[in-house]
Amino acid sequence: MAGKTLAELAEHVGGTVVGDGATVVTAVSTLENAGAGEITFLSNEKYFPLVKETGASAVITNRETESNAALLIAEDAYYAFMQIVVLLHGHREHAATGLSDRASIANSAKFGKNCNVHDLATIGDGAVLGDNCIVYPGAFIGPDVTMGESCIIYPNAVVFDGTVIGDRVIIQANATVGHDGYGFATHKGVHYKIPQIGRAILEDDVEIGANSAIERGTLEDTVIGAGTKIGDSVTIGHGTKLGAHCLLVPQVGISGSNTIGHHCVFAGQSATNGHVTIGNMVTVGGQSGVTGNLPDGATVFGTPALEISLAKRAYASIGSLPEMRKRIRKLEKQLKKMES
Amino acid sequence: MAGKTLAELAEHVGGTVVGDGATVVTAVSTLENAGAGEITFLSNEKYFPLVKETGASAVITNRETESNAALLIAEDAYYAFMQIVVLLHGHREHAATGLSDRASIANSAKFGKNCNVHDLATIGDGAVLGDNCIVYPGAFIGPDVTMGESCIIYPNAVVFDGTVIGDRVIIQANATVGHDGYGFATHKGVHYKIPQIGRAILEDDVEIGANSAIERGTLEDTVIGAGTKIGDSVTIGHGTKLGAHCLLVPQVGISGSNTIGHHCVFAGQSATNGHVTIGNMVTVGGQSGVTGNLPDGATVFGTPALEISLAKRAYASIGSLPEMRKRIRKLEKQLKKMES
Amino acid sequence: MAGKTLAELAEHVGGTVVGDGATVVTAVSTLENAGAGEITFLSNEKYFPLVKETGASAVITNRETESNAALLIAEDAYYAFMQIVVLLHGHREHAATGLSDRASIANSAKFGKNCNVHDLATIGDGAVLGDNCIVYPGAFIGPDVTMGESCIIYPNAVVFDGTVIGDRVIIQANATVGHDGYGFATHKGVHYKIPQIGRAILEDDVEIGANSAIERGTLEDTVIGAGTKIGDSVTIGHGTKLGAHCLLVPQVGISGSNTIGHHCVFAGQSATNGHVTIGNMVTVGGQSGVTGNLPDGATVFGTPALEISLAKRAYASIGSLPEMRKRIRKLEKQLKKMES
Repeated sequence: MAGKTLAELAEHVGGTVVGDGATVVTAVSTLENAGAGEITFLSNEKYFPLVKETGASAVITNRETESNAALLIAEDAYYAFMQIVVLLHGHREHAATGLSDRASIANSAKFGKNCNVHDLATIGDGAVLGDNCIVYPGAFIGPDVTMGESCIIYPNAVVFDGTVIGDRVIIQANATVGHDGYGFATHKGVHYKIPQIGRAILEDDVEIGANSAIERGTLEDTVIGAGTKIGDSVTIGHGTKLGAHCLLVPQVGISGSNTIGHHCVFAGQSATNGHVTIGNMVTVGGQSGVTGNLPDGATVFGTPALEISLAKRAYASIGSLPEMRKRIRKLEKQLKKMES
Repeated sequence: MAGKTLAELAEHVGGTVVGDGATVVTAVSTLENAGAGEITFLSNEKYFPLVKETGASAVITNRETESNAALLIAEDAYYAFMQIVVLLHGHREHAATGLSDRASIANSAKFGKNCNVHDLATIGDGAVLGDNCIVYPGAFIGPDVTMGESCIIYPNAVVFDGTVIGDRVIIQANATVGHDGYGFATHKGVHYKIPQIGRAILEDDVEIGANSAIERGTLEDTVIGAGTKIGDSVTIGHGTKLGAHCLLVPQVGISGSNTIGHHCVFAGQSATNGHVTIGNMVTVGGQSGVTGNLPDGATVFGTPALEISLAKRAYASIGSLPEMRKRIRKLEKQLKKMES
Repeated sequence: MAGKTLAELAEHVGGTVVGDGATVVTAVSTLENAGAGEITFLSNEKYFPLVKETGASAVITNRETESNAALLIAEDAYYAFMQIVVLLHGHREHAATGLSDRASIANSAKFGKNCNVHDLATIGDGAVLGDNCIVYPGAFIGPDVTMGESCIIYPNAVVFDGTVIGDRVIIQANATVGHDGYGFATHKGVHYKIPQIGRAILEDDVEIGANSAIERGTLEDTVIGAGTKIGDSVTIGHGTKLGAHCLLVPQVGISGSNTIGHHCVFAGQSATNGHVTIGNMVTVGGQSGVTGNLPDGATVFGTPALEISLAKRAYASIGSLPEMRKRIRKLEKQLKKMES
């Protein structure tokens, strides 16, 4: 690896150097493990004391601090770190397979320039893929799917008929998008399948995690807003509209017919009831269960989900319950004694 | 789309028309979005006020109400809605591929009439598929699997050796059925795999959601009862017997060796311990954890799972814990003061 | 099946026979269902009364007890049971396919002796597989993956580039290993993907459950320790180090950057926050949420996770909350009355 000088990196990220700008950096590593020729980063205030001891040649940070290593100071250190990882290591490179003869590609499918459909992938009737799309082995692109430019569909991901995919969308391995929603009409104890005629829509820059499942809509489309990043094993119910730039980490379960704003964050294993409306910039804590609507900016935790400052005190009090019961019992005895 | 008259629809569902039976309907839509030529439905009492304003040409409902739209009155409006979606839109149509040369089909596999095994699907040795079965690309039907009629195995679903599948079973994309149960014997700190010699059995009309995992049994079979519908990312442990016509929505986790009755409902992310026995018509609320047996008709919520009327009050009280602690402290002070 | 005499089985497991050692056993079954010619086992003290009534020809147990059946007494009865299931029934047999012409195998891939790569499997550039490895249809082994001996990769499992796999590792169907971690740098409301340059490492004897997702590391590797068994639909975050011989049952969610010791047990749907450190031999109860570090030997339950003896009493008290509130109210009234 040729490497870059710290001065070059600083210019790349719009930062400044404290120390020797001629320091050559070839790789990014962690604060603990970085050695000579490596750059590391510091985005958490509590790790500043470790900077002194780092073996790294350079540290990305958001302010000056004492260090043997040279510093690259950037306003948003973590963003600069990301830019430098991209510069030095790059994103995954993909093989140039063209449209493999060993894929199953419908005659009616259409492709932009420079698409790579790997061996053993499937492209259905009437599917339309934009420029620079990549479909890995075992991935299934159903009939009439439309896909923008520069999408990556990883191995064994499944995209059902009619799904609409924007530009630069990434679907991780074994994810399922646009399958039938969980929709049944129960009549005399028997559950009848309701055809799911809505679609799934993934807007630009969406990423869907491995083994996640995004249902199509019953009548109305399921929509994942632009820039939203969904982790592994997440489920999204039919007809839900998820806003732009949300973060849903692994194992989140969003029910059907939800309307969720932009920049919402759902921590691990959190979930919602059906038909709830959630505002913008809402944060839902891990394992929390949202049963009702939430206004813009709400931060909640727990099942039932409570406003965070109350939730912290309330859920922390559960451990005191045995003692509280004792104290109540004691008060009752004392009072009885006083009365008699 | 040719469409149907409202009178024709009413006859189809055994309902009656209030208004113009000659109204032509070509599609089904939501109460909010339906326009001319479309029919919508009303199954929830609270949305009745919206009927007045709907742009729909017709509304399916279970009783007369004021509306500009014509009404199709049916005793079970949601069931009628389902029937009409099926009539006007139909279920997904599947390509007639026959047994593709590009699938991997064992010579010893046997097929009923009119089976479609797509490119890149696998059918193992000794597998037997009934009439009208469909196996999508990437799906794997293991050795000695038996399958009834009219089953649909969606892309990349995996069905292990010896699994027994009834008629009209649907397995959604990326689901796994009949793999080894989580069974290990731990000896001196090392976990040894126990061969899982039971099977997985999916009875008639079962649907398995995308990315779900239904383990085979250790010694006894795992059984999913007729008509039971399982959502996405559900896990079912080895040897569990799930009754008929149950509903398990996404991310439910049923442990092994459970015996569960018919018409049970498990809401999102609910779970059970191993070796529990659950009666018929039991409802388990979202994120609840069932640790012991439950009688017929029980409705429970929470972890630990409590009877629903108690659960509602008990879990709602968690938010009052900080205040309760304050009140106890105050009582103690008052009492101390009185005593002195 | 030819069967074995009870004396032969006893010799095989290092146990002793009480009763007729010439009894012929051809299969293993459950205490309830075992019949003539079958052996069953008893590892749970509470089922001893059932031994009298069993129809089995023999019972594996850890001490003498009254029974019509012959007894095979072994110190670790469940371990002996496992050994006998293996002896009589064996592990799954796999077809000898060699390197199928219908698989997609890179020219640069290397194979040890006796590997079986099934139709429709993919082996990427530079992948190296040891002796006796099996790759089922639809499985994807990415570029530069290295794999030890005697591994089994089940249908549609996906292993990303650079993943390092030890000996005797089993990856169940539809599992994903080594895909990009959930790593984004958020800048001015937009989430930018951080290249994930760490690897995923599965040490010897690891088993990964169906539909599970094990992320690769951002900078440092994700490591699953030797002998650790992971259930279905489990997610492991980037950079987490999981020790040896852990048990993670279905739907567990371990966040990124965790350091977890050996012989830890995570029950169903339990989860951890990012950046926690957990000691050796820690047990986390079902649906519990671990938010902080845990010392060696800890056993915790609940969200928030409390030490087990407190947790049992505390969470069991939630059901008493409505009654506690009443008692506090009553005390307040009494006190007010007394004061006036």
